Amino acid sequence: MAATTPRRVLLDTDPGIDDALAILLALASPEIDLVGLSVVHGNCPLADGVINALAVLELGGAPALPVASGCDRPLLRPPHTALETHGDKGLGYATLPRAAAKPVAEHAVDLLIREIMAAPGEVTLVAVGPLTNVALALRKEPRLAGAVRECFFMGGALRADGNTTPLGEFNVYADPHAAQIVLESGMPITIMPWDITKDVQFTQAHVDQLLARGGPIPAFIAAATRFYIEFHLKQFGWAACSINDPAALALVWWPELAQTRELYMAVETTSELTMGKTVGDFNGMLGRAPNVRLVEQFDGPEFVRRFVGRMEALIERLG
Amino acid sequence: MAATTPRRVLLDTDPGIDDALAILLALASPEIDLVGLSVVHGNCPLADGVINALAVLELGGAPALPVASGCDRPLLRPPHTALETHGDKGLGYATLPRAAAKPVAEHAVDLLIREIMAAPGEVTLVAVGPLTNVALALRKEPRLAGAVRECFFMGGALRADGNTTPLGEFNVYADPHAAQIVLESGMPITIMPWDITKDVQFTQAHVDQLLARGGPIPAFIAAATRFYIEFHLKQFGWAACSINDPAALALVWWPELAQTRELYMAVETTSELTMGKTVGDFNGMLGRAPNVRLVEQFDGPEFVRRFVGRMEALIERLG
Amino acid sequence: MAATTPRRVLLDTDPGIDDALAILLALASPEIDLVGLSVVHGNCPLADGVINALAVLELGGAPALPVASGCDRPLLRPPHTALETHGDKGLGYATLPRAAAKPVAEHAVDLLIREIMAAPGEVTLVAVGPLTNVALALRKEPRLAGAVRECFFMGGALRADGNTTPLGEFNVYADPHAAQIVLESGMPITIMPWDITKDVQFTQAHVDQLLARGGPIPAFIAAATRFYIEFHLKQFGWAACSINDPAALALVWWPELAQTRELYMAVETTSELTMGKTVGDFNGMLGRAPNVRLVEQFDGPEFVRRFVGRMEALIERLG
Amino acid sequence: MAATTPRRVLLDTDPGIDDALAILLALASPEIDLVGLSVVHGNCPLADGVINALAVLELGGAPALPVASGCDRPLLRPPHTALETHGDKGLGYATLPRAAAKPVAEHAVDLLIREIMAAPGEVTLVAVGPLTNVALALRKEPRLAGAVRECFFMGGALRADGNTTPLGEFNVYADPHAAQIVLESGMPITIMPWDITKDVQFTQAHVDQLLARGGPIPAFIAAATRFYIEFHLKQFGWAACSINDPAALALVWWPELAQTRELYMAVETTSELTMGKTVGDFNGMLGRAPNVRLVEQFDGPEFVRRFVGRMEALIERLG
Repeated sequence: MAATTPRRVLLDTDPGIDDALAILLALASPEIDLVGLSVVHGNCPLADGVINALAVLELGGAPALPVASGCDRPLLRPPHTALETHGDKGLGYATLPRAAAKPVAEHAVDLLIREIMAAPGEVTLVAVGPLTNVALALRKEPRLAGAVRECFFMGGALRADGNTTPLGEFNVYADPHAAQIVLESGMPITIMPWDITKDVQFTQAHVDQLLARGGPIPAFIAAATRFYIEFHLKQFGWAACSINDPAALALVWWPELAQTRELYMAVETTSELTMGKTVGDFNGMLGRAPNVRLVEQFDGPEFVRRFVGRMEALIERLG
Repeated sequence: MAATTPRRVLLDTDPGIDDALAILLALASPEIDLVGLSVVHGNCPLADGVINALAVLELGGAPALPVASGCDRPLLRPPHTALETHGDKGLGYATLPRAAAKPVAEHAVDLLIREIMAAPGEVTLVAVGPLTNVALALRKEPRLAGAVRECFFMGGALRADGNTTPLGEFNVYADPHAAQIVLESGMPITIMPWDITKDVQFTQAHVDQLLARGGPIPAFIAAATRFYIEFHLKQFGWAACSINDPAALALVWWPELAQTRELYMAVETTSELTMGKTVGDFNGMLGRAPNVRLVEQFDGPEFVRRFVGRMEALIERLG
Repeated sequence: MAATTPRRVLLDTDPGIDDALAILLALASPEIDLVGLSVVHGNCPLADGVINALAVLELGGAPALPVASGCDRPLLRPPHTALETHGDKGLGYATLPRAAAKPVAEHAVDLLIREIMAAPGEVTLVAVGPLTNVALALRKEPRLAGAVRECFFMGGALRADGNTTPLGEFNVYADPHAAQIVLESGMPITIMPWDITKDVQFTQAHVDQLLARGGPIPAFIAAATRFYIEFHLKQFGWAACSINDPAALALVWWPELAQTRELYMAVETTSELTMGKTVGDFNGMLGRAPNVRLVEQFDGPEFVRRFVGRMEALIERLG
Repeated sequence: MAATTPRRVLLDTDPGIDDALAILLALASPEIDLVGLSVVHGNCPLADGVINALAVLELGGAPALPVASGCDRPLLRPPHTALETHGDKGLGYATLPRAAAKPVAEHAVDLLIREIMAAPGEVTLVAVGPLTNVALALRKEPRLAGAVRECFFMGGALRADGNTTPLGEFNVYADPHAAQIVLESGMPITIMPWDITKDVQFTQAHVDQLLARGGPIPAFIAAATRFYIEFHLKQFGWAACSINDPAALALVWWPELAQTRELYMAVETTSELTMGKTVGDFNGMLGRAPNVRLVEQFDGPEFVRRFVGRMEALIERLG
């Protein structure tokens, strides 16, 4: 790994517990070079997401990384948060010190455009929140779709039940119009759906393994995921939490964990009953060319093992 | 079984290969008393469905059973048949002699209303085609919902892919507005979805077992299902055909084969992308009272075994 | 007029104040032969509409005319009455004695089908309520569209504001799906829209002219229209009431009062915001063949003058 | 007028013939200080609109005024131009020399945000094309709605027929989602609808009056409007063209020409049949607070007289 140049990655995020874990994983992974964070409304209101992003970067030893504040609401739908999943301030029972750093003056949409257009074909975009920032960036700079190296998106429920409405997964339901803009953009995109990530489960045993090392990162992970596990237990009956966003991020450098297929996917944007449903044309009934690569299988246990390993390495490094 | 009175059953049908098998199963099953057939557009145009219904009744030794012709198109959608699944005339490679009997003068909608209202609480309705006839009957006679003993409906794809569009199962997609009328009617209804029936698979081995007995019924089943198996092989890659409608019918007297749960279900009727999607609120996210009983598990192999046994018995009886 | 055979007319109605006036006008007009009334939900609940229809026929001297009860709710929308327009029981401040006659046993849908199919090309249908009965009749008997002589429908707001929602006129809004079925049926249809009928205004002066004759019909008209005028004053600021339904009926034999044009018209059935909007393609932008004849001008004052004359003649005849 | 400070105005435009006339009017009117132009897709593709904007500024003697290029397509709908109305390059039969100036590097969305946020309460936005730029600006900078002095928008057909579809006016139909974002933003907005502007008619006599003065501006106006008048004649049968955009702009300083009322207005964004319909709740049926001020009457002839006067003054000044 040391011989190759790390891939430059922009993370569009709405932190959020699993977003925080994705940020820590990014900082712990030498395969990628995290260029910056663009924050979007989603799991919590935008202002809290920005505070959380800055605090997690400081916790992870990267206080100088740029954090850009983005869109504070969806394109057309009323705002919809997930505070019951992520806690009142977005990080469960965890409370991090307010970071010394401030967000950059640049808007998230402009950060995405500037970084991607500065090096066409080089920057990878990982989007783990509602796609409002990305959709606005595409409309503001149409060449973005052709300039991004590729995009990984955590979102959608194709064959699984939704986690927000009967058919709707949170990141798509929260801004279905933005999702449709991104899907139609021609950008090379890999979808990591809730169908897959719900089974990427992080348990108290994993927490305990990290807690044994002591220090602020394990304490943060323990407090954040305690809330998150309680939610999953109450909502889904699982004694674990789904760490969706880190799994989507890891596709950048651990593609061997996933099996994918190309297909045509679209988002419902007009009917209240099915709003935000991600429709995958698995059997080619619509006669449309594929527009996404969909993760159909993923080695969750192996990923979680590696994730814990990376957290241990980070703890040690920052020790 | 001999000690109990057979349940009176009306079969609303669009024959169709598996419809034909359901008719034969009804005639072969002493637990039910088939009152008559109401025919609806669906797998094939209405006129062909009526011809097929009459011919199959004659084949099954019940030429005098009333067949009522019903609606020739959906409420609002353009007509949509499934000739690629069922063959040009609806019965695959089978060609039955034109029956001597004619359909009754009474419209299918009126047959349903008259029989059900004549004995409130006694007549069971089994609907294995698009629900246009049933929906019209409910609008014409609103007391029908309270007078029918119960209704079994083969249709919908809740968690499975659709078989007609990415999300749409044929019977619902072909008249989603009618399906929505039926679901909202308050009628006690059990849904046998494509999720379940696709796995109720009838194979060439089953055909061969029947062919060994000789005679017109095995010959008919062999010629009809040969087309049907070819279709399933081409479309889904299965060396078998799904005998959806007989499985739905059998719920009337073999409930032990099924496990069910109550839930709220609705049908998409406005968006082209998701038209006809049957939305099940599996996790109670909508806060609506259940309006259906959904079959969640079904012992397909045991059912097919019993189905073959019933066909053997019918062949023997009609010898 | 005496030399020609009166045209046979079926009136599909939801009485309703102006419906009652239409019934009286039908009875007063030798140019038509009123075959019967089919009643539909609409201005008031179905049961009240049936009571009102029978009572008005008795008032008008035709107690033996068949009244058939029809559909008690729209196809898909929740029921929507107009009691604020027509009063709690549908006839404003008027209270008529309960008629001795009962509705016929035949359902309204079957009355329509039987009468029209019995004499193809002869019977004219005038529909002045929501189109649920007519739509069901078309689905039950598809040949109806070709067998009816022609259909006149009071409903729709094409260029005028709606009277029920910003864009929706009552008869279409109350069952837009039924209206769409009728528009697509191929039936020769003339639309008398709210755009026109709102200006067919009946005033207290007209009432007084009739009251001068004494007797139950003037008393009824006065009590019914007093409520109706109060409503129009409050709702629209007019010191008069729009007698929509009589004006639509009169198109059958006084076509010289109207100027019409052919155009393509469709009904919005999917969006809540615009539900029931009747879209007229006045400028041929959709490239569709015309499916209706639309009344674009109508001599309201002359019609009202003739209407009052007919009421006077009826009063005299029944005197 | 000399005693008051001119109002600072940003013009968001898709030039377009009447857009060009609006730019010339802005340059000719001392009551306003034109800050710059933001260009959006619409009447013609974005790139042509930018070229036209620069060329018209040069023609009008303001070659240094900033022109910012904006969004090249609508948020969600497929792009839709009006070349049949405005000619292949957007200016009818007129061909202007390519301007020496280039568009500014800043994106139109950022120009709008920067200028408006720099002086809260001072800058007036006049939008005479599809609202994509404005909607993006609102989502990127939510405080914009409260910081703009007021917004004038040319668009919508409330009671008139649409000019693009039976119900749809071009500027709204071309990006209905953007229009809905703007309407819901809370921005103080005045709507100058097609209902009104279609009757603001500029004729060959007006052209001739200007041509008498000679020079490039009359020649441009003559060549551009000749195409435009031909279009209106063919499409609507009028021997004149509607100069929509100048009329909307003039509301800034000639409010006495208009009568307005406040009302609630929304845009259809889900149904193909009624897509882009602007629904005005004229009778308060929806119980929503007003969100726009609507121009209900406008003295078109007086405006056109003044417009011609301003053109004459500009010609003289630049002579």
